[in-house]
Amino acid sequence: MTASEIRALFAVASRPEVVSLAGGMPNIAGLSMDAVGAVVGHVVAERGLVALQYGSGQGDPVLREQICEVMAEEGIEAHPDDVVVTVGSQQALDLVTRIYCDPGDVVVAEAPSYVGALGVFRSYEAEVVHVAMDADGLVPAALAATLARLRAAGKRVKFLYTVPNFHNPAGVSLAVERRAQVLEICHRADVLVVEDNPYGLLGFDDGPRRALRADDEGVIYLGSFSKTFAPGFRVGWAVAPHGVREKLVLAAEAAVLCPPSFSQLAVSQYLSTQPWREQIKTFREMYRDRRDAMLEALDDMAPEGARWNRPEGGFYVWVRMPAGVDTKAMLPRAVTARVAYVPGTAFYADGAGADAMRLSYCYPTPERIREGVRRLCDVVTDELELQHTFGTGSTSPGDPVSTQWTQEQAPAPDTA
Amino acid sequence: MTASEIRALFAVASRPEVVSLAGGMPNIAGLSMDAVGAVVGHVVAERGLVALQYGSGQGDPVLREQICEVMAEEGIEAHPDDVVVTVGSQQALDLVTRIYCDPGDVVVAEAPSYVGALGVFRSYEAEVVHVAMDADGLVPAALAATLARLRAAGKRVKFLYTVPNFHNPAGVSLAVERRAQVLEICHRADVLVVEDNPYGLLGFDDGPRRALRADDEGVIYLGSFSKTFAPGFRVGWAVAPHGVREKLVLAAEAAVLCPPSFSQLAVSQYLSTQPWREQIKTFREMYRDRRDAMLEALDDMAPEGARWNRPEGGFYVWVRMPAGVDTKAMLPRAVTARVAYVPGTAFYADGAGADAMRLSYCYPTPERIREGVRRLCDVVTDELELQHTFGTGSTSPGDPVSTQWTQEQAPAPDTA
Repeated sequence: MTASEIRALFAVASRPEVVSLAGGMPNIAGLSMDAVGAVVGHVVAERGLVALQYGSGQGDPVLREQICEVMAEEGIEAHPDDVVVTVGSQQALDLVTRIYCDPGDVVVAEAPSYVGALGVFRSYEAEVVHVAMDADGLVPAALAATLARLRAAGKRVKFLYTVPNFHNPAGVSLAVERRAQVLEICHRADVLVVEDNPYGLLGFDDGPRRALRADDEGVIYLGSFSKTFAPGFRVGWAVAPHGVREKLVLAAEAAVLCPPSFSQLAVSQYLSTQPWREQIKTFREMYRDRRDAMLEALDDMAPEGARWNRPEGGFYVWVRMPAGVDTKAMLPRAVTARVAYVPGTAFYADGAGADAMRLSYCYPTPERIREGVRRLCDVVTDELELQHTFGTGSTSPGDPVSTQWTQEQAPAPDTA
Repeated sequence: MTASEIRALFAVASRPEVVSLAGGMPNIAGLSMDAVGAVVGHVVAERGLVALQYGSGQGDPVLREQICEVMAEEGIEAHPDDVVVTVGSQQALDLVTRIYCDPGDVVVAEAPSYVGALGVFRSYEAEVVHVAMDADGLVPAALAATLARLRAAGKRVKFLYTVPNFHNPAGVSLAVERRAQVLEICHRADVLVVEDNPYGLLGFDDGPRRALRADDEGVIYLGSFSKTFAPGFRVGWAVAPHGVREKLVLAAEAAVLCPPSFSQLAVSQYLSTQPWREQIKTFREMYRDRRDAMLEALDDMAPEGARWNRPEGGFYVWVRMPAGVDTKAMLPRAVTARVAYVPGTAFYADGAGADAMRLSYCYPTPERIREGVRRLCDVVTDELELQHTFGTGSTSPGDPVSTQWTQEQAPAPDTA
């Protein structure tokens, strides 16, 4: 599924009668527009000549200090000089890939992986090799086996791209005890770690987990205000070791000269005058209710043989369909039945994922989520009856919803 | 001079005691902050849920319609579907280059050319070949000779990058009678034209000149609100033929997902509720006064042997120094004397330009411009005395300030 296919899907899915479980749009209705109005009013009235002008390619210095405070929530000690503000964390990933990857270089990523990252890697003609996940996230033994195999094959592996918290699309998090293992494996193999963490502060139960970057200053960390404040300003960032950060700034200047000053001062003013931690708490509660609505609906209505995980934060549930269901082929019928999702194939670079789908609970109300799941389950039930006439479809190797993972299963997803 | 050198220079030049004739910052003090405050207040109050959310990768549809109205001022008939909104026109150039250029491909550009464009071409490892300009802009015979030479050498020329109006840094405009010639030469050589036009509406005397894109729908046109409204929102655009535009949208999505919704709605609201044509007229008058101040100061104080052009719009005067002056070597002495400029070498990919400098009149007041030129001329006079002891330096081949250009001179700048 290409970006243009997803765009076409989103165009249909955005019709009001369709329950979209496809998008990853945060529920910004949870923000106070009065507060945002006060923030941007202040920016124009008090900082207008700075907010409307070109700024530094690295980003506003005060905002970079505030970003360090935000990251401290996850145990990261960084200096504002280490931070590069970007046009969303998507741009940070784009620039990192631009700096590191020549055509044919390998990026190792979870199976499945974020569709927007796969688009970046594709645009630089990097080869993506997936590594298995399970309910505890990336599987260290599978990572080690993959890196060894790639090294033996003479491949240049440039970095591991990983979303350790509340993974998009898999919904799982990297277990605490695995974090040091993943860092150690990459360190031994001389492979950089790129930690993409847009959802880290959106955990439903405990406090934020310690970032990989908190224990390894060599990690490139990508952050974003899109899910903790609002995506419309497009403010994200990268934290990188000195040598890389210099290159990042140069690449950012070539790409956009500087990130939008207005957006940066608005986010900075928001952080310094509004109760942003309380707002994140509000978001967490809102998303937890929605997560609960989706899981209850799946528990109640999903057809036999379907499996899914129980995310502890973030936006997504990853659902494996019963054998015989091709989620991409089924999508037009689902949209006709007024429900949308993203087929699993979007999240693999190697054509896998046809039996899976990503369901987002971030945006619709709990009532709409329940109705969407009902419609979806009806479509799947019809699909299964149809498929029984024609035999079963293919299954996909990586499986983050399984709580059981064995050595034998691990190497399979890496045969990209 | 690298981007980091320019950054270091700007850091020093931004001290209040230094008159900076270096930067290209528009004089946004000419904007009404009350009007901008009303614009952004309305965006939050009435369009908050759209302005703070992710948007389309191609850009807001209403803004794209308004962009077509702006371009109509220069004779362009385009459909909103042809427009891709970008994070400043810098991003548009970055994406066009990403789509077209593999390492070793050739981009043909004026001599001198915009430093930010050279940075983009460098980042994609494209080779830049300069073509001579004179007081009427790019020299068609030199362009034809260059393209023929490159074809004979087996080079892949991907596009001509040109700033036809009030060139940065050369300050000249492409004469009307040359426009069809440039298009015809590129058409025959099967070379794409990329028209970068941030200053087109900032002419001091006549109305806007007809864009190259107005007479050739194959031209990729880059536009910006940075000089006609404010750079802090980072809103620019590209207009491209259908096949290219699809690729541009995909590349834009990979790079940043979508341009900032807030910025786009702010610009859109500004265009629909504020007298933007009157504002541009105000900017033109302001910049004309500053241009006059700079030219008068140069006329009064420049040392014998210095030559410069008389720009009819835009932000820049291009000054050739008397033989023996190396503008890059002189820069630290100039900054010590509390005046800054950009050395000519920044605008060449081939090391030329050491005898030239770009002076910007856009930002300082006329009084400060006069003081800056006085300081600069004192430094040059001292420099010439110093140089007389050590002999003359090198001269640079491309020469947009000359009003005389002959066939013999043309091939020289292209020996990149």
